[in-house]
Amino acid sequence: MHFDTPLTLECHRTLPEFDLVYETYGQLNDQKSNAVLICHALSGSHHAAGYHSEEDVKPGWWDNMIGPGKAIDTTRFFVVCLNNIGSCHGSTGPTTPIPQSSSEGTPGTPYGPDFPLITIKDWVRTQAMLSDRLGIDTWHAVVGGSMGGMQALQWSVDYPDRLRRCVIIASTPKLSAQNIAFNEVARQSILSDPDFNQGRYLEAGTYPRRGLILARMVGHITYLTEEAMKSKFGRDLKSGKFMYGYDVEFQVESYLRYQGERFSKNFDANTYLLMTKALDYFDPTRGYVSDESLSDLEALKQTLKHTRCQFLIVSFTTDWRFAPARSEEIVDALMANDKPVSYVNVDAPHGHDSFLFDIPRYMGAIRGFLNSPFLGAHSNTDSAKPAATTKPHTQESLT
Amino acid sequence: MHFDTPLTLECHRTLPEFDLVYETYGQLNDQKSNAVLICHALSGSHHAAGYHSEEDVKPGWWDNMIGPGKAIDTTRFFVVCLNNIGSCHGSTGPTTPIPQSSSEGTPGTPYGPDFPLITIKDWVRTQAMLSDRLGIDTWHAVVGGSMGGMQALQWSVDYPDRLRRCVIIASTPKLSAQNIAFNEVARQSILSDPDFNQGRYLEAGTYPRRGLILARMVGHITYLTEEAMKSKFGRDLKSGKFMYGYDVEFQVESYLRYQGERFSKNFDANTYLLMTKALDYFDPTRGYVSDESLSDLEALKQTLKHTRCQFLIVSFTTDWRFAPARSEEIVDALMANDKPVSYVNVDAPHGHDSFLFDIPRYMGAIRGFLNSPFLGAHSNTDSAKPAATTKPHTQESLT
Repeated sequence: MHFDTPLTLECHRTLPEFDLVYETYGQLNDQKSNAVLICHALSGSHHAAGYHSEEDVKPGWWDNMIGPGKAIDTTRFFVVCLNNIGSCHGSTGPTTPIPQSSSEGTPGTPYGPDFPLITIKDWVRTQAMLSDRLGIDTWHAVVGGSMGGMQALQWSVDYPDRLRRCVIIASTPKLSAQNIAFNEVARQSILSDPDFNQGRYLEAGTYPRRGLILARMVGHITYLTEEAMKSKFGRDLKSGKFMYGYDVEFQVESYLRYQGERFSKNFDANTYLLMTKALDYFDPTRGYVSDESLSDLEALKQTLKHTRCQFLIVSFTTDWRFAPARSEEIVDALMANDKPVSYVNVDAPHGHDSFLFDIPRYMGAIRGFLNSPFLGAHSNTDSAKPAATTKPHTQESLT
Repeated sequence: MHFDTPLTLECHRTLPEFDLVYETYGQLNDQKSNAVLICHALSGSHHAAGYHSEEDVKPGWWDNMIGPGKAIDTTRFFVVCLNNIGSCHGSTGPTTPIPQSSSEGTPGTPYGPDFPLITIKDWVRTQAMLSDRLGIDTWHAVVGGSMGGMQALQWSVDYPDRLRRCVIIASTPKLSAQNIAFNEVARQSILSDPDFNQGRYLEAGTYPRRGLILARMVGHITYLTEEAMKSKFGRDLKSGKFMYGYDVEFQVESYLRYQGERFSKNFDANTYLLMTKALDYFDPTRGYVSDESLSDLEALKQTLKHTRCQFLIVSFTTDWRFAPARSEEIVDALMANDKPVSYVNVDAPHGHDSFLFDIPRYMGAIRGFLNSPFLGAHSNTDSAKPAATTKPHTQESLT
């Protein structure tokens, strides 16, 4: 979807035009009341479910969640997942050539480091613009995990009347100092790589591969848990004995390097920098609370007062990146406002990554919440009945 | 102290000769029974207490623990702290020129990456050689925190009759997969820095500064806690507002970069690599347990069966690098063998770094344990009375 109206961002810079790539699954009903928006996390894309072709070895990143008969049931819901701007999977981002309409930079060369920094609020705004184009006035639900959960939370605050349900999974109302510290290590890994070339690696014909590998390695450790790593790798040695050198010795080293290598081939370094900054900046209370002396909880309470949707908050017991206590901050702020909120702390061994796993209690909670009646008073009725023309299989429209 | 007898290491390579730099505080008594050995951690040195000159701004790294009237009381004990081989603070290590007696490499050029990988067991062996030279048959106590605690534990196993007390602080019987993973990120930061030059940066006139900064940044996060970072920095912004760029914005970023920069100026990259490997390799059961199918606890039980000293194990509630549960593994294995062990889990907010802080309950536990009677049956009597000639102030002999 092309947008040719200039978009002024929170950083006060303007994108003269932009594209959003998205996929849809299932059919929009006549009332346009059965639409579910999926927001992706740091490394995600619009390709959330299904296969693009018969040769595809891997389905979309949330295929265990989205599909016919699955928790987000595509025989019932019209599911939309878009790639956010600033990303590197098709929507306008650092790898996109600067358009002729731009007043900054050299048209035709990639934005690279000149792509403006984006915030969660900016993303939600572009998602609302996409909703307008799709004719979806009110979402049956906005759903996201990790950074996707932040977008869902921001939706409930910025567009209270445009969603009936908000599902915030493995997320947080804002990053802790430790979260920011890990992001900073990742950024410095990339920024200090000589092949980064001040972000102009595409023109220079280089690529900060080493920096991206390190960034992903440190990130990956925080997605897993000590226990999960122990049961998956323990202290197993690749060759069965100590080699007394710096080649891979322990299985966990081999795994981390592999994950880093693979990621570095499919991701853009400027995007990684920008995404970690969007995480660091996230604070839904900005613009809603003027008194800076308020406690975190008090500020969040004031901010969430104006929400009008029903909430499902999901956390995972072993998630130490965004621990259950961080989810509970959102729950507490909602409850203090007498807002309808369900909270599930799911027992799962996979740490932060749990939100991508097929865990019955987790899937059941999402399914039940999406199917539950809406108790609020939106102008738009809550008749999330399937479209009359529902097809028996997931439909994907690649744009 | 110079040692001119070749030292064959666990990796089967040989150092033809080596130096150990050490400091001592207090006086050795006539029975040579009041000696306390201090083992240092990753970035530590032999300079544990006192000032080297009046111009010194900072005292030794454990000055709050060691001194007249302090928990390790130098009016009572003769305290020895050495710099381990492979380090970069004076003992033979990667920055040392290869001696003429070496059969490998070019004499006169620094060992650099050709310095053999060292294990905790190797260190303990060189410490025992130093003990011989000092005429100390049996230590009143061997004390260490973090990697120093691993050395103390290894002492109790390898030389059961040469120490009466063993103090293991903020340590672990071996590294977890997550610990190894963080070390691997640190190593890859250094190894992938183009200025590392395969470890020959001294000859090349370069220095892997960026790699060392990153390594230290990621290490530093694991020494602190989420809570400590929150109370120290929170989400405070350096300039009070978002700058939408990649310069330092949050205070925690500023702090981490500063710590990394400072460390990179005072530490050798090859030493850092070697130290993290010594950590990864540490496993006191190696050589003591032949049955590889034994559980971790069972293997540790069999290994610790032959110890003859009294133990004090100290952990800190907020330490997530080497959590209290890791200390408890040592306690459990000792208790299963009916060994005398005291265990203190100290409530402290500083995470792993707590072992360097002046915490009354912690200091009290060390003091009490060192002053407690020895209940075992070593040939050497336990009369840790002060030397007759004790001076009123800490004496330091720099070697």
